[in-house]
Amino acid sequence: MRVVAKLDGTLVDPEAPLLRPDDYSVQRGDGVFETIFVVNRRTREFGPHLARLARSAALLGMPPVDVPAWERVSQVVIDAWPWDTHPEMGLKLIYTRGPEYGDGTPTGFAMGIPIPDSTIRYRREGVAALTLDRGYSTDLTERAPWLLLGAKTLSYAVNMAATRYAQSQGAQEVIFTASDGTVLEGPTSTVVVAKDRTLTTTPPPLGILEGTTQAALFRAAEAAGWKTEVEPMTVEDLATADGLWCVSSVRLITRVHTLNGTPLPDFTPLHQEISGLYEAVYA
Amino acid sequence: MRVVAKLDGTLVDPEAPLLRPDDYSVQRGDGVFETIFVVNRRTREFGPHLARLARSAALLGMPPVDVPAWERVSQVVIDAWPWDTHPEMGLKLIYTRGPEYGDGTPTGFAMGIPIPDSTIRYRREGVAALTLDRGYSTDLTERAPWLLLGAKTLSYAVNMAATRYAQSQGAQEVIFTASDGTVLEGPTSTVVVAKDRTLTTTPPPLGILEGTTQAALFRAAEAAGWKTEVEPMTVEDLATADGLWCVSSVRLITRVHTLNGTPLPDFTPLHQEISGLYEAVYA
Repeated sequence: MRVVAKLDGTLVDPEAPLLRPDDYSVQRGDGVFETIFVVNRRTREFGPHLARLARSAALLGMPPVDVPAWERVSQVVIDAWPWDTHPEMGLKLIYTRGPEYGDGTPTGFAMGIPIPDSTIRYRREGVAALTLDRGYSTDLTERAPWLLLGAKTLSYAVNMAATRYAQSQGAQEVIFTASDGTVLEGPTSTVVVAKDRTLTTTPPPLGILEGTTQAALFRAAEAAGWKTEVEPMTVEDLATADGLWCVSSVRLITRVHTLNGTPLPDFTPLHQEISGLYEAVYA
Repeated sequence: MRVVAKLDGTLVDPEAPLLRPDDYSVQRGDGVFETIFVVNRRTREFGPHLARLARSAALLGMPPVDVPAWERVSQVVIDAWPWDTHPEMGLKLIYTRGPEYGDGTPTGFAMGIPIPDSTIRYRREGVAALTLDRGYSTDLTERAPWLLLGAKTLSYAVNMAATRYAQSQGAQEVIFTASDGTVLEGPTSTVVVAKDRTLTTTPPPLGILEGTTQAALFRAAEAAGWKTEVEPMTVEDLATADGLWCVSSVRLITRVHTLNGTPLPDFTPLHQEISGLYEAVYA
């Protein structure tokens, strides 16, 4: 099941070709994207996702994001989705620099996709995660803007390769570290740790994305009396936490039960509490 | 003018959509490519380019490259190109992981494109180059294979952003450096230096591509009595060289006349000698 619509709101056959061979997404991974979780027609964090799409596009020097157009095409996909049989949908928004031999018009489309069975299983069972070196130091975001750190670009070959590598080692998830060992983020997730009733995530200026799901979770946790903080962490901090999660729009609050091959102490009650805080936001 | 053919040899309309919205190239920049220079129907370094395509695909864990199929589709594009009016062509080979919701068959196509006017001008006039930090240390290729260093992937958003950054600073070309200042490569070129009748380029194990054009040039130079070496270089080595070039299949042997805003001493006679060595390979 998939639903695809062009940015002008036209529904198209998801099996039919849509992109020209010279589209910059195909040729260069040159564009940006977002994945939004939709449950029974209700989007989660739509505004923050669209704001991040706009920030990513600006970092790539692309034409500004047409917010009303993206709102409309998202609604077109939501309206066409078979909610009776598929109550959850991932809504991908893809915005590329357009055809290289075109008139400069960017390409935009929205795609509704089912949540993979593996993602649903990981939500329930948790994952084994491997920390892998991302190769970057933590001081590059400001001084090397051409590295596009902080932009959610379509150039995700490394993110995919890191996940394949983890899978080849028997893990399901990756947590990237900087060259000095500082914890960064997952290839498609944000890292969250609980310790002594404080939730901590890693600072975007280290060279990572601002997490939309993490932000929603932190707001809910603060309202429930948790302390939250955005601070650099080491792998040791992850290993000695009371709870460790990789969070994202479609994987939600997925717990890490094993880190670098070592099982973490069971934290099921804490996991249920934190997941409950997040789910209550949308109840 | 463009000519596009699918890997099965079918010519298609270059203005028509070819890629499904869920193709991994569109979604993730997940695939590999080569750009081959063709002059009056004759390819240059076709074998080395195809070998590098195969190495890149292997590094990404993609199905093996079907060499006879790529040879056939390349010939289809060459046969369809209007050589009378366009004596030079760039032949792009694009090989992606295919549609995410497909049967696992990868996507392949070849595209003949004209050489951009700017590239032709830079061949003649040379370029101003800016050294930019690539953010990586030089020891990652072996110990972090998930970073795909040495693979020519479709995830080129950073390469494009670096070039745009250089252009915003009044330069035309980028030379990436490692985090310790070691010279790496251009976003789409290999760096070559001449000093005391020795040509030097940078070692691929530092985390860069093997250069097809550089390799052809070095073979020709050795045959003409030059010494060649593959050794790490610093930016100071570039600044104090007898000659400095960014070389690639379509830009050929393009000289760098200005480095980080400082004009280099004129080396026109040396440039003519080195360009002549390269062109003689295909005479």
